[in-house]
Amino acid sequence: MEHRAQEVISLCRKLAEFTEEPGHITRTFLSPPMRDVHRELGGRMERQGMSVNVDAAGNLRGFYPARRPGAPRVIIGSHLDTVPHAGAFDGILGVVMGIAMVDALAARQMPFGIEVVGFSEEEGVRFGVPFIGCRALVGAVDEALLALRDPQGLSVADAIRSFGLDPARLAEAKLVESTLGYLEFHIEQGPVLENLNYPLGVVEAIVGQSRLRVCFTGKAGHAGTTSMKLRHDALAAAAQWIAVVESVAESTSGLVATVGRMEIEPNAGNVIAGKVYASLDVRHALDEVRHQAAELMLNRAKQIAAGRGLSFEWEQHLDQPAVAMDPTLVNKLEQAVKSAGYPVYHMPSGAGHDAMIMAQKIPSAMLFLRSPGGVSHHPDENVLVEDVQAALNAGMRFLEQWETRLD
Amino acid sequence: MEHRAQEVISLCRKLAEFTEEPGHITRTFLSPPMRDVHRELGGRMERQGMSVNVDAAGNLRGFYPARRPGAPRVIIGSHLDTVPHAGAFDGILGVVMGIAMVDALAARQMPFGIEVVGFSEEEGVRFGVPFIGCRALVGAVDEALLALRDPQGLSVADAIRSFGLDPARLAEAKLVESTLGYLEFHIEQGPVLENLNYPLGVVEAIVGQSRLRVCFTGKAGHAGTTSMKLRHDALAAAAQWIAVVESVAESTSGLVATVGRMEIEPNAGNVIAGKVYASLDVRHALDEVRHQAAELMLNRAKQIAAGRGLSFEWEQHLDQPAVAMDPTLVNKLEQAVKSAGYPVYHMPSGAGHDAMIMAQKIPSAMLFLRSPGGVSHHPDENVLVEDVQAALNAGMRFLEQWETRLD
Repeated sequence: MEHRAQEVISLCRKLAEFTEEPGHITRTFLSPPMRDVHRELGGRMERQGMSVNVDAAGNLRGFYPARRPGAPRVIIGSHLDTVPHAGAFDGILGVVMGIAMVDALAARQMPFGIEVVGFSEEEGVRFGVPFIGCRALVGAVDEALLALRDPQGLSVADAIRSFGLDPARLAEAKLVESTLGYLEFHIEQGPVLENLNYPLGVVEAIVGQSRLRVCFTGKAGHAGTTSMKLRHDALAAAAQWIAVVESVAESTSGLVATVGRMEIEPNAGNVIAGKVYASLDVRHALDEVRHQAAELMLNRAKQIAAGRGLSFEWEQHLDQPAVAMDPTLVNKLEQAVKSAGYPVYHMPSGAGHDAMIMAQKIPSAMLFLRSPGGVSHHPDENVLVEDVQAALNAGMRFLEQWETRLD
Repeated sequence: MEHRAQEVISLCRKLAEFTEEPGHITRTFLSPPMRDVHRELGGRMERQGMSVNVDAAGNLRGFYPARRPGAPRVIIGSHLDTVPHAGAFDGILGVVMGIAMVDALAARQMPFGIEVVGFSEEEGVRFGVPFIGCRALVGAVDEALLALRDPQGLSVADAIRSFGLDPARLAEAKLVESTLGYLEFHIEQGPVLENLNYPLGVVEAIVGQSRLRVCFTGKAGHAGTTSMKLRHDALAAAAQWIAVVESVAESTSGLVATVGRMEIEPNAGNVIAGKVYASLDVRHALDEVRHQAAELMLNRAKQIAAGRGLSFEWEQHLDQPAVAMDPTLVNKLEQAVKSAGYPVYHMPSGAGHDAMIMAQKIPSAMLFLRSPGGVSHHPDENVLVEDVQAALNAGMRFLEQWETRLD
């Protein structure tokens, strides 16, 4: 398998050359370099005996038939689009892994078909809305989505047409009835596995997210002439609150909370800040824990503001529930990892993935591969050849378990 | 005096109409509306028996002669330029007060001449450097200053020429030998007097200022996939430090310290901040107290950074010493305020003023007038008629004290 693992990495690196921006990896939904990716991957799929098509949402779909016609199928996939100035593995790796597993079957057929899907859109860069690719499979592409416009003024429907596809045929992109499940390999995009020295992580759930924007309003003032007691400093209030957010997160197992963005008014060195907007991002695998934490953080913000004679407002921008992976598939994946000889580590996914959408309709599972340095969405994004090999080994055991069950 | 106080306010409001931006008060160094101000104030000065000229730095200078030729003079003044979207009183009030005091003499002559100066530049808006007007009086306009360029590419020397003045004659703008002292009336620009319900404040010193820029460098990371323990969050570190800055300032009498500006990288709600630049502004009337406080704040920042696995750097942008007002004049001003029937309150000036520069060459004193709401550099900037009256009364007593001494 080591040669094959090396090939997986080489192919991801090769696909990284198909980009909208020379010198960077940038490949958004239905952009011209996506055609090159389809040609490259589609050719490989065909050489492995798969039938290939691109559906009306721009998803690349290769089907490797089962031993008998009419058998159910398993989907292996991830996305082919990237953020601007991306790395080579986020998304792409999961598609290339699917092709490598079909290759590893060496023409052996299974009691189920294998569909490898390269989703056209997951990152949400071009239209500001993520998951367009997998939404077509679960039947969640509606007129409102098709009418969204990119910065050039093209709608999603326009983009589909100008790629040579027909939005009227979107219904054909839906999952077929007899789909057994969805498996997604993905780099972790975080430092947890590396820190524990584990190659793989079995995802139990994709965390729910709260995103809020809070605003502390005090009173701008002259930094020299306003004594400390007479200040209503919005930045000092926000700073005090950030410490609270951090402390609540640290004391709640599995919770992550981040203030990553602030807008300060007037943001001048010699003026006491009159107003500060701050983002709050809270995530946990259990929605109740997340909601309680967010509420506590907001209550503390209100107290801090009141204690300083400031006003406080907030608005919620996102309250996305956690999505559990299918317990049966998670168990199957755990057995596969174990029987392939690797330690089993269960973890939540802190980021959203296609599996989150697919799980609405079919049993879904995800396997994380360690991210060196925890780096992602960056040219330094990487994956270790031994971890790819581990994932391939575990993935093949996973298919074999299904084979045993269905035979 | 109440009628005269009302006139002072009316004249300030009238001058506010001479602006570069209709609907706002914006009047920078040697801008066209400055001519209108000179014409308006110069006319009044002449009608009060003063000789008027505009020196080569653009300062309006009116001289009211002493009883006898060759007698020394006292200068009363402040600046005529404004920040963008200013109020009507910052600077202007001190010039109009000087004219009102000469008017109040009702043609009576003193054993000293009175020069009323309207400085051309104090705010530093046009060339990014403040105090150009009063620097001409103390002989501190050098070639480097004349070569500075405004955003349109004009140098200070060009600006002087295009206003119809001659930079070669700058030496003539210098203080004459026999100048006894400088008195500046100015709005407080802060909330202290209002909070104590005092109309006037006798300035003891203009505080020294430290301005620094600090930088916390951590590691950007995904807000969902990086567990709390594995973070090196530059914004959380900066927030912790802002609380320290506030706490050190609150526990040091007379100290003010402000973090008013931050630049956060990448400043995205779902990304842990990798780098944060923050401003630090520290002011105190005693340089040693200020230096010790700034050093303590920096040491604590280093500790916070080290404790979080971040790096910390800082650079000093300003270390301006405090400037004491002349003790004899401060005492004289205190007696004047007291004998006029008002409470005496000594205070530092937290902002820089022309008096800071004038004090380099001649004994200087400042009298603050309460700022309603502490508001300044804003259209709502205001002054109460009874406070202007108090300042006029105290100012006349101040002149009379000098009269007694010199007679």
